[in-house]
Amino acid sequence: MSGPRYTNLVESLPATVPFVGPEEQERSRGTSFAARLGANENVFGPSPKAIAAMQAATDDVWMYGDPTSHDLRQALAKHHRVGMENIVVGEGIDGLLGYLVRLMIGPGDAVVTSDGAYPTFNYHVAGFGGVLHKVPYTDDREDPSALFTKAKEVGAKLVYLANPDNPMGTWHEGPALARAQDDLPDGCLLVLDEAYVEFAPEGTAPNIAIDDPRVIRMRTFSKAYGMAGARVGYAMAAAELIQSFDKIRNHFGMNRVAQIGALAALQDAEWLAKTCADVAAARDRIAEIAASEGLHTLPSATNFVAVDCGKDGDFARRVLASLVSQGIFVRMPFVAPQDRCIRISCGPNHDMDLLAQAFPRALSDARK
Amino acid sequence: MSGPRYTNLVESLPATVPFVGPEEQERSRGTSFAARLGANENVFGPSPKAIAAMQAATDDVWMYGDPTSHDLRQALAKHHRVGMENIVVGEGIDGLLGYLVRLMIGPGDAVVTSDGAYPTFNYHVAGFGGVLHKVPYTDDREDPSALFTKAKEVGAKLVYLANPDNPMGTWHEGPALARAQDDLPDGCLLVLDEAYVEFAPEGTAPNIAIDDPRVIRMRTFSKAYGMAGARVGYAMAAAELIQSFDKIRNHFGMNRVAQIGALAALQDAEWLAKTCADVAAARDRIAEIAASEGLHTLPSATNFVAVDCGKDGDFARRVLASLVSQGIFVRMPFVAPQDRCIRISCGPNHDMDLLAQAFPRALSDARK
Repeated sequence: MSGPRYTNLVESLPATVPFVGPEEQERSRGTSFAARLGANENVFGPSPKAIAAMQAATDDVWMYGDPTSHDLRQALAKHHRVGMENIVVGEGIDGLLGYLVRLMIGPGDAVVTSDGAYPTFNYHVAGFGGVLHKVPYTDDREDPSALFTKAKEVGAKLVYLANPDNPMGTWHEGPALARAQDDLPDGCLLVLDEAYVEFAPEGTAPNIAIDDPRVIRMRTFSKAYGMAGARVGYAMAAAELIQSFDKIRNHFGMNRVAQIGALAALQDAEWLAKTCADVAAARDRIAEIAASEGLHTLPSATNFVAVDCGKDGDFARRVLASLVSQGIFVRMPFVAPQDRCIRISCGPNHDMDLLAQAFPRALSDARK
Repeated sequence: MSGPRYTNLVESLPATVPFVGPEEQERSRGTSFAARLGANENVFGPSPKAIAAMQAATDDVWMYGDPTSHDLRQALAKHHRVGMENIVVGEGIDGLLGYLVRLMIGPGDAVVTSDGAYPTFNYHVAGFGGVLHKVPYTDDREDPSALFTKAKEVGAKLVYLANPDNPMGTWHEGPALARAQDDLPDGCLLVLDEAYVEFAPEGTAPNIAIDDPRVIRMRTFSKAYGMAGARVGYAMAAAELIQSFDKIRNHFGMNRVAQIGALAALQDAEWLAKTCADVAAARDRIAEIAASEGLHTLPSATNFVAVDCGKDGDFARRVLASLVSQGIFVRMPFVAPQDRCIRISCGPNHDMDLLAQAFPRALSDARK
């Protein structure tokens, strides 16, 4: 009696996961975190109107969600002044990245990303047998020119670029990115992850024609809209590419209440503006907390700040370990020299006060 | 400037979808359905405790869900008296079927199912390049012996069997199924879809050792627990197989509020019993409505009833079209001779009254 027969690809895959969740850390610590500032969740939360809409919709949770996400896509199309046929809604950007990689990548296909960029994208590429080529950050920023040159060199089908970037929080101005895009090799799709773009200065999102077949943009309700737990992301691209998702996606994968909540969140522009202001203030507060210990922070166009701990990765890891042991959930870049930093998500004053209390001890612990 | 390069497999896939949702039908009708009895949703809804838990959890939707679904898996493990390592939670059975097919099936791999069984499973198999072999129903029931014989003949890696069955509502007793399983060929995994099993008579679920490597069982909160819109399913199997999902699944794919709601629903055994009683009464009511027009219904172990319209598929399709035009959303089997039936989901009295009103006219319309 033998077991199931996996594909060769699956047999070759390691049993790793892209991220360990904070709940698992809490279970092994035996206690909850006092401040949850490690996953770039938006602690300021979603629009109260979105919460109210979701609570009302819960009574109807016996119904499947609309598999086409019609109403949400219609509102997004209006919001972005594109056609509904240019938008696909999915189970967070993570889910959409998985579908996108599946559409393009088979064993041996080349993909380019930055060394230290989003691990879940890499997880999906590996999961479909793609071969990842990584280029380093330049001055703590992703380097479009280096990425596109590498893509040409290896014949990449996909190149991933987050703008603003995670985990560093840095960004490129839209016009510069649009110009760089001219160097994309033929037949290579730019996966432009704009998860954090609502926090960024005006003009950070490049002006790209929606029917440009060289680019797909990823957006989410997890960050500025404060609904990470709802799992609603969307992608915008040329109609043909968007339509191809329908060949493979889980058509009934969307939570009905989340669809309704996202629609309500999108319509509350006032709350979004308030959130962005709150986040900007928290970024300043994190910079102050770091500066009071003589440390430098990177300018950020996101809801998190990379704090340069001033020494090497081992030192930063000790700072992080001490913060975690003090009940402050934070994460940090994986790759040198970016791993000299720790990455702290923005939160309300209460969370920032806890951080301010814990931070000096974290540094003195790390120096021991 | 050329477009993206899809995989050969994706290029070959048709742009079909497994199901058109009722919302899309409503939009093209220009009006809402009066009764939603076509998708085997549970109109009786989830436990009020689950609704309350979800409404309370909405305030915390800014947090990602626990990627391990720890608390829900722990409760499910206790409920089923298996280990947590024997359970994976996913985005509905649809999502889990997609992952399972991906684990096993590559281009050309053989898969066996019944002709007329769950289209979404077939969609996933086609989506990974698998080759479907179908065996007919026997007496409106899936035929385990024929399925397993075919699996041996074609060297199938997967064989799909729903017990109780959808779309017919028929079932096999657990002991008979457990005996049949001895005919499963070596290296073929039985995908036992038990989405409706909570509605079925005691003993319908076969007694299978949890570490038996030949079977994976799929369960859901969409049916008896009344939470289709939440998208929570789970699979139970040997630990090694369950662990392999971690190689490929969307680890952060679960809606946080849905996880919490499912846990609360699981703990309300009283509501589940009430729901099953309500469903049983509605099944009787559907049988009465059919009998009053001289029609026969199939015995059902699910929350829907297949009404034998007494003639061929074309006749049944006309009955269905008339019901739909009268505002009653129903569906029907795709394949002859099962397509002589229409499939009606159970609902509360109000919905059954609407059905009772519309049904005689549907038959007279069909006879025109």
